[in-house]
Amino acid sequence: MSDDGPVGKGASVTAGEGVLVLNAGSSSIKFALYRASDLSVAAEGQVAGLTGGDAHFAARLGDGAAKVDEVLGPAGHREALARVIGWLSGQDAGRLPGISAAGHRIVHGGGVFAAPERVNDALLERLRAFIPLAPRHQPHNIAGIEAMATLAPELPQVGCFDTAFHAAMPEVRTRLPVPDRFHRAGLRRYGFHGLSYQSIVDRFERMTGTGLPERLVVAHLGAGASLAGVRAGRGVYTTMGFSPLDGLMMATRPGRLDPGALLHLMREEGLDAARLERLLYDECGLLGVSDESADMKSLMESGTAGARVALDLYLDRLVQEIASAAAALDGIDALVFTGGVGENAVGLRAEALERLAWMGFRLDPAANAGHGPCITRDGGGPAAYRVPTDEQWVIAEACRTVLREGALEKS
Amino acid sequence: MSDDGPVGKGASVTAGEGVLVLNAGSSSIKFALYRASDLSVAAEGQVAGLTGGDAHFAARLGDGAAKVDEVLGPAGHREALARVIGWLSGQDAGRLPGISAAGHRIVHGGGVFAAPERVNDALLERLRAFIPLAPRHQPHNIAGIEAMATLAPELPQVGCFDTAFHAAMPEVRTRLPVPDRFHRAGLRRYGFHGLSYQSIVDRFERMTGTGLPERLVVAHLGAGASLAGVRAGRGVYTTMGFSPLDGLMMATRPGRLDPGALLHLMREEGLDAARLERLLYDECGLLGVSDESADMKSLMESGTAGARVALDLYLDRLVQEIASAAAALDGIDALVFTGGVGENAVGLRAEALERLAWMGFRLDPAANAGHGPCITRDGGGPAAYRVPTDEQWVIAEACRTVLREGALEKS
Repeated sequence: MSDDGPVGKGASVTAGEGVLVLNAGSSSIKFALYRASDLSVAAEGQVAGLTGGDAHFAARLGDGAAKVDEVLGPAGHREALARVIGWLSGQDAGRLPGISAAGHRIVHGGGVFAAPERVNDALLERLRAFIPLAPRHQPHNIAGIEAMATLAPELPQVGCFDTAFHAAMPEVRTRLPVPDRFHRAGLRRYGFHGLSYQSIVDRFERMTGTGLPERLVVAHLGAGASLAGVRAGRGVYTTMGFSPLDGLMMATRPGRLDPGALLHLMREEGLDAARLERLLYDECGLLGVSDESADMKSLMESGTAGARVALDLYLDRLVQEIASAAAALDGIDALVFTGGVGENAVGLRAEALERLAWMGFRLDPAANAGHGPCITRDGGGPAAYRVPTDEQWVIAEACRTVLREGALEKS
Repeated sequence: MSDDGPVGKGASVTAGEGVLVLNAGSSSIKFALYRASDLSVAAEGQVAGLTGGDAHFAARLGDGAAKVDEVLGPAGHREALARVIGWLSGQDAGRLPGISAAGHRIVHGGGVFAAPERVNDALLERLRAFIPLAPRHQPHNIAGIEAMATLAPELPQVGCFDTAFHAAMPEVRTRLPVPDRFHRAGLRRYGFHGLSYQSIVDRFERMTGTGLPERLVVAHLGAGASLAGVRAGRGVYTTMGFSPLDGLMMATRPGRLDPGALLHLMREEGLDAARLERLLYDECGLLGVSDESADMKSLMESGTAGARVALDLYLDRLVQEIASAAAALDGIDALVFTGGVGENAVGLRAEALERLAWMGFRLDPAANAGHGPCITRDGGGPAAYRVPTDEQWVIAEACRTVLREGALEKS
């Protein structure tokens, strides 16, 4: 763990080099091994069940030539990662590149990191300071880095931040409407899902055959959900703010919520901070309103009154927030749907675009049913697209850049 | 205090009849005596300083023929109201109508009252049940009714609710993204500023010479601020929700605020419910962000960095919320600015409309500087207007209807 500074651009990598992309969460580590030469996936999988009981390891080679699906027994991040590396090392050498770098998804880079960063002790210390800003994710992201450092002390590691895409937002977009002293202490808007937004911006032209529009709203709709307002490829607005609770309604999180509702829950229901946190992260959104399911697909198939009102509220707030994001950009040239829900919920995309006809969107039902990529008719108004997100690819790309820099340094 | 039911339409009133409009708050009672025949203002004024120390009474006749400005000594709602009635009774009989009914601004009518209601014991009991929903306003509104009932037990009284305009909103607009059991217990969106919105709808044609647009967004911008989405005269959307803290940024209230920010303030700053309430009602918004002033005019004249960022944030959120409200209406035909800020801040109106040019607004700078009423050029897009609000007029109108019904009953 040496070498500092943001990751830049450089020379080529060798065919045998690979980058291991890691997403270490509270209960699982997801991984993918990319060939550095062409960023194709050589292997991918995950270890789940890290919070207790037996862990579970499942993985496959990119060409399907080998698979694994096994129970590991109780494991932490380090044991899980050791098993991943052991399995990768045991494969036929001709099929897999070696691991030349590891890249990590890190939820919080504060307001300071606008690009991937090479990991060193100083960086780790700064990332630990952001734990109070993302207590549910940051400790596990850091645990992944630490486990890798123990297993392979000399391996270059790269941190890729979900906040980085938004780090250059204008001052006004970083502000919460709270006293300035809190802002100066870090109570500000950071934004999340930045790796997803980066992947859309970087791959838009390749995926759609169209140049990147000047004023683009990206709707990342998954279990978590947010919008980004992108001007000329740069993040200038987003609906998630200080925490991943703000903005759009989500599977179990509320999104924007009247602060008076929280006061009421404290006063009349006696909820303390721990209980409120559980409520806000795990019991609101689609699940809370429907009193039935957090899953968009299940709710669409359900037909109960609860499912209907939850879906109505989700859609109503989605179209309002898209209009809001358009206002933040002083207008809109294109809208992208991405994320698990955004890529798959054909009906939701159709309803949203029909509700937004006043903004000039003209749904193309056949193209939408066929998943686009362009899902609107050409009519002079803004266009809409369905573009798959690929956060791992962004991390792999960042690692490849580190390897290229290493090659440059050696030459 | 007898007679039930919503206030309907009826026959004429006599020239000598007057209606006393009252707005009883925590620290003051504002009043206006209207002639029932033509709803002209015969007298108006207020008693301030009811929370401690000496109260202060100031009033004038509508024609300016008499004025009063005096220190009363410590007073509660009842003493204040007694002084108002005493002063009115002491005026030259030819100049003032008698008091035939009293109308009250009541902040909270729950989700049940969609129109003004004649006051009786059962109504008062229901209004008391709404105190937890508006603890800062409702008790004082009720104290005004009770004081009047003590002073004039036979006088017909009418309650006019700030929530009533929104009471027929579609189900989806009443929902917060919280568990359904809380919704059923009353944790839902009610909306406020309804008397202001009613006055805009009732007086739009008279004030602008134009028929009421089908899809109208009204921006009530004062110390408190909210938007209403109005379709064919009916409130179908509003930015204030369960509490008057939600939606637009205000003088000292935040408007919409990341729920994670509140969790953080509880955890990291140790704020309890009482401290959070003070923060949210009195220390956020323009005052908190600027660290300088809660007053729009002062901030516009200030030129400090704090003032600038507070105004930037106010404007940025305002245009986003207007776009959101347009989405809630599936498009927009007209926008109205009203309230103390909306009626007077020429520069703010201009900047908002310029930011919203992408929605088709075409600012007419000269008309805007001259306060309109129409402040946009005719260009096929939506129009914008500056229309003064008059909440007292709405209450007076409701009282007149009660008197007409009384006349019908007697005939």
